[in-house]
This record gives sequence, C-alpha cells and structure tokens, in this order.
Amino acid sequence: MIFMSELIGVIENFHAIIPAGGAGTRLWPLSRREKPKFLLPLNHPDKSMLQCTVERLLPVAESVTVVTGKKHYDAVVAQVLRYPQVNVIAEPSARDSMAAIGYAAEVLRNRYGDDVMVGSFAADHAITDVALFQKCVRTAVEAAQDRIVTLGIIPDAPSTAYGYIKPVFSTGEVQEVERFVEKPDVFTAASFVQQGYLWNGGIFVMLASLLKRVLDRHHPQLSAGLTALAREDFSAPEFVACWERLTKIAFDYAVAEPAAAEGLVAVVPLPARVGWSDVGDFAALGRVQSAGLGGVALAELAWDGQSVQLLDSVSEGDESRVFATDGTRLLVSVGLGAVHAVITEDVILIAPLEAAQQVKQVVELLENSSESQFL
Amino acid sequence: MIFMSELIGVIENFHAIIPAGGAGTRLWPLSRREKPKFLLPLNHPDKSMLQCTVERLLPVAESVTVVTGKKHYDAVVAQVLRYPQVNVIAEPSARDSMAAIGYAAEVLRNRYGDDVMVGSFAADHAITDVALFQKCVRTAVEAAQDRIVTLGIIPDAPSTAYGYIKPVFSTGEVQEVERFVEKPDVFTAASFVQQGYLWNGGIFVMLASLLKRVLDRHHPQLSAGLTALAREDFSAPEFVACWERLTKIAFDYAVAEPAAAEGLVAVVPLPARVGWSDVGDFAALGRVQSAGLGGVALAELAWDGQSVQLLDSVSEGDESRVFATDGTRLLVSVGLGAVHAVITEDVILIAPLEAAQQVKQVVELLENSSESQFL
Repeated sequence: MIFMSELIGVIENFHAIIPAGGAGTRLWPLSRREKPKFLLPLNHPDKSMLQCTVERLLPVAESVTVVTGKKHYDAVVAQVLRYPQVNVIAEPSARDSMAAIGYAAEVLRNRYGDDVMVGSFAADHAITDVALFQKCVRTAVEAAQDRIVTLGIIPDAPSTAYGYIKPVFSTGEVQEVERFVEKPDVFTAASFVQQGYLWNGGIFVMLASLLKRVLDRHHPQLSAGLTALAREDFSAPEFVACWERLTKIAFDYAVAEPAAAEGLVAVVPLPARVGWSDVGDFAALGRVQSAGLGGVALAELAWDGQSVQLLDSVSEGDESRVFATDGTRLLVSVGLGAVHAVITEDVILIAPLEAAQQVKQVVELLENSSESQFL
Repeated sequence: MIFMSELIGVIENFHAIIPAGGAGTRLWPLSRREKPKFLLPLNHPDKSMLQCTVERLLPVAESVTVVTGKKHYDAVVAQVLRYPQVNVIAEPSARDSMAAIGYAAEVLRNRYGDDVMVGSFAADHAITDVALFQKCVRTAVEAAQDRIVTLGIIPDAPSTAYGYIKPVFSTGEVQEVERFVEKPDVFTAASFVQQGYLWNGGIFVMLASLLKRVLDRHHPQLSAGLTALAREDFSAPEFVACWERLTKIAFDYAVAEPAAAEGLVAVVPLPARVGWSDVGDFAALGRVQSAGLGGVALAELAWDGQSVQLLDSVSEGDESRVFATDGTRLLVSVGLGAVHAVITEDVILIAPLEAAQQVKQVVELLENSSESQFL
C-alpha cells in the first residue's frame, strides 16, 4: 500500500523545464498554426495540455520554466499567469529541443548553482495517475545524482510512433540504459516489446552541471553558446544573433544517446497504470477523450464546440452509424464503421482510426497548396 | 440519322401534368422538409429539377400543370413564373399520386374536352438526351389513342429501387404491357433484367376520358370526387372537405395495374442513351453530377454552397484521400475509399457509396428524435 503523504511535497532543488514547441500537426484541424496542440484543452474540459502539465509538476518542482516560440509567447503567458512559480522564456526562433532545454538549464544553473536538478517534460502529454507519475519523478530525481535519468513508458502495443529505450535488465526500480533506438518498423517494434524495451517519452532528469559536462564533451560550441546566452551579457540583437548560431539538434541526439554510450543514463519504468499518452494522433486522442464522450466505440469525435452530444451510435457491419451534434451542427455517418470525424468551423476531417497517422501528410499537402488558410 | 426538325414542335392537344410531392428523403440533408428534392438544382447549375422537367416538356406540350402541396406552393410558383404556359395547383393535403394526377386531368378535361391527351411526369427525374426523350413522348402520345402508354426505362443494372414492367415482347416501338411488378429483391431483379423487363419510371400518357373510364370502373367513388372537385362548384371549405375524403392511393395501383390486367396498357421503351435517372439517392446524384465535379471517382460530393472545388483526390487503397473546398470550408477524407460527403451549413453526412439507400433510415431516425430541426 502506498501512502499519499510520501508522494506529495516539492522535491528540494528540483526545477522543471517544459519545451513547448511542437505543432501537433497530426491533430489538425484541431491543432492549428496559431493554436498548437499544447495550448488546447484536449485531456481536460477547460485546461490546456500545457496547464495540465504545469499542474502535474508544480507539486514536486520548486519552479517550472516553459520555453516557447515568440509566436506563442503571449498565449503561453496568458495560460500560466495563474501559477506564480512558472517562468516563460521566448525563443527568438526554433532551434530544436537541445537549444530550448539547454538554455533553460543554463538559466537555472546560473540562478541556483551547479547542484540544481532539472527535469525536462513534454508540454503536450497526458497522464491519468498523476500521483504515481510524481512518485516516479521523485525516484528519477533520487537516482539522478550522478547520471541522466529518463522515464521510460512500459509499452502496451508495438507502436511505431515512438523511439525505444533498451535497458540493461535488472530487477530494481532504476535500470541502466544500454541505448536509445529510433522509431522502428512494426516488426522490429513487436520484437522490442517482447524483449522489454521501453518507449522513449522524452522525459529526462539530471543535474544541470552534468548536462553541461556532457554537452561540453560532445557539442562544445553549442554548449558555450548556451552558457553565454544564459549569462545575458548581450544586447538584444547580439542575443538573437548568438541564438541563431546554435546548432539545431534534438536533445536525444545531442545528449541522451552519447551519454547512454558512456553508461551515464538510467531509466525509471513508468507502469501502464500511470496512463501516459502523447496524444499523438486522433486514435490516441480518442482513447484519452472517450470517457468524456460516453465511450464512443464506433467513431471518435472531436469538435471545436464546447460539448458534443452523441445522439445515436450503432456498429453492426454495414449498419454502423453515428449521430452527433454540438447543438447547431449535426454529423451523421452511415456504413463506415469506426471513423474519426473532426469538425471545426471551417474544416471537416474524416478518417478511419487506422489512418490517424496520415493526417500529418494531409497537413504537408496543405502547406504546399493554395489553401494554407486552413492550416 | 434523326433530324432535329422532326423532334421539335408542340403535340396538338397534349398537356403535361407534374405531380410535385416527393420529399426525396434519401437525398437528405440536401433535400429538406422545407426544400424538397424537386426544388433543388441537382442536375443543372442553376435550374431546379422541377424547372428542368418543365423545360423538357414545354417544347412538346400545350400546357404544363404542376400539382404540389400547400407548403411548397409559393416556392413552386416562384420557380415557374417565368414560363407562361405553366399552371400550378395547390393540394389542400397530400392524398397520394392518384388524387394529384386525377384532379389535374379532370381540370384539363373540363377545360379542353374529352379528347385532351394528358401525360404525367415526375418532377424530380433527370434526362440527358432531351430530344430523344421528347421523341419517345411523341411516340407514346401517338400510341395512346385507345390505351394508356407508359415510358419504360431499359435497365442498365438489376436495381431493387424501382418497380418493373413486364412487356408482351414484340419488335415494335410500342409493346403491350402484361403487368406491373413491385420492387423486387436483387435476385428477382437480375432475372427481370435478363428477361427484358423495363423499369417503371412513373410516366403515363393517356386520354383524359380513358383515364376517367378506367377510374370509374375501379374506383367509382374516387372518380366521382375528382370530377366534382374539378367542376369547382364548391365553396373553399366544401372543396377541402371533399378533397380530404379522396382515397389515398398511388396511380399505379388505382389505374396502371388494373388497366394492364384489362390489356389497356402499352409501353414505349426509353433507350439507355436517353440518360434517365430518378436521382433517387447519393449514388445516383453522384453519377448525374460527376461531370460537373471533374469526374470525382473517389468521393461524390454535394455541397449547399455555390461551387465545390476539388483540390486533390487520390485513390490507392489506404492512401485514398479527397480535398475539396467551397472557399470557406474544407473537407478532407483520408483512407476511406469511395465515400459520399454531403455538406450543408448545419449537417455533415458521410457514407460509402453502397450505403446511399440507408440515408432514408437516417431521416426516419431523426424524425423520431429530439433533433428534428435538422430535417
């Protein structure tokens, strides 16, 4: 039995970083250029994914730093104003996740010293069992005194949407990481799942000083740039110029993979009942939201209206049908089986569940068309 | 070679009747309670099906009488105002097609005498080769001096959506009708097509006096009622009361079937290149409209906007996709193959082509729901 008391309480000297940059194009047309996935209330009736992420971290972190693009800075600030322990950093331009996380970590190291422990968390993931998640974060922080600790999700399917983590198998709560593996094909994924690999959810906990040392070894120029930027001894134009020279590289490639090769990475497995989801496509969104829509098995519906009422739903082969309304509009599908219907004021997207990943290509097509107003 | 001159010209003493009553529920949500199928421009960019029907008949008929419900009277009048030879009769209530056709025929008999030839034509059918159709009407009129002549459509598929006509096979342009057969199941339909049966398109040409005699024999009370109503020696309330007492029966049951049993019906086969369609469902609508939408093979689109622009369409198994827009809204389907997407301001209907007939059940479901505002 786990006592709640042992799960609650801020972890001393631990500060969270949330890079909020992903567009979530696979969730188009819900997520838009002007309103990306992390700003949307996808797993809560009136809180955005970012707000849910912040509220999940505030009970365990002394502060939370959100790093976002200039374009979304105002919207992010408006969403986190209510949380006094949250800071927002605007990136002059998107230089990938290493720049975002590394810059925030250097800012925190300047402010709190070499012993500051930083954790990087995606802005747009969903968690069901928040207390259990926080307990895993605490375990990760405790294990991170001399290494980088990631939280690896125990897979429930051979997904090809995630990178995988190969642990050096042991019985403890914390396992050494042998290596990180990129998104596999479905056969490789099945073999990974069978062998006990974990999903890479992009969550990393580490001492800011260790991060600095690893980055110094593998990307000295980028490391120097981040340190210089964090010292803020620049005028604004110089700051931007320096920022623009930062190597564009993902945290995984810049730090996680080389550190794993050096035996410097460990993983805390996240049990399935944590209920982690990256809400990466409409199939995943449907699983996250299905409770709120009365468990729609036949079609997963997303709407930009306030509430969707399912009027009728039958699934018997050719007789399948869905009726749903937001009060002013009605959606009817017949004979289609399980489809996703996404309805916004200006866009209607219909796809079977298994085509959820194709939405990304739809967005790419639109980008290259004369209809980019729908992005 | 057919010379156009022989096809053109009003047929002396021939008057057309158009009962305009059907709702076309299978075309919902394009057709609505307030705007039924015959009022919609489904087979012409800016003329309704009724207007197309009127324009197809005016070159061969001395007059056209449209019989419609009180509810749609104003809309019908507005649509036919431009044609001086068209009269509109408002029915106090719907008493089925025998009452509509029989009353109009009696009105014409009163006005033009016993020798007036009347022809009844559906308000919401499409014809591609109008000149050939008119030639067939002329043939029917010539053959109708002593019998009722129907135009039977030569089937191109074993449809279960139509009743069939069994001719007494002969080589002439006009064949005697042995009997009318109700909508068959698909196996019976296949055997009918093989045996040379024709589709019953509900087109009948006959002397008004012959119609009166047949009706006198089989439905004397209904016949007397129609004759009395046509004399107009009633006050308005008496007219309505008399109308309400008329037997509700279809023309086929009341006249066509008993007359066929008496050897009084003949059929002029309509060749396939006449391009007849009852536009009975979205699959049929798609065939009628496909030219206008650039031959969309993958999805047949219907929109309540002025014009639909197809942006992209690919059909390669799972890779199938459709992008279409009316300028302010975008429809995207991926991975669904051939679907119908019907988009109106308040309703979105998605169905595979083969489910087109199910739309009728959708409307029935809505009628029994609290969402009847969408009908």
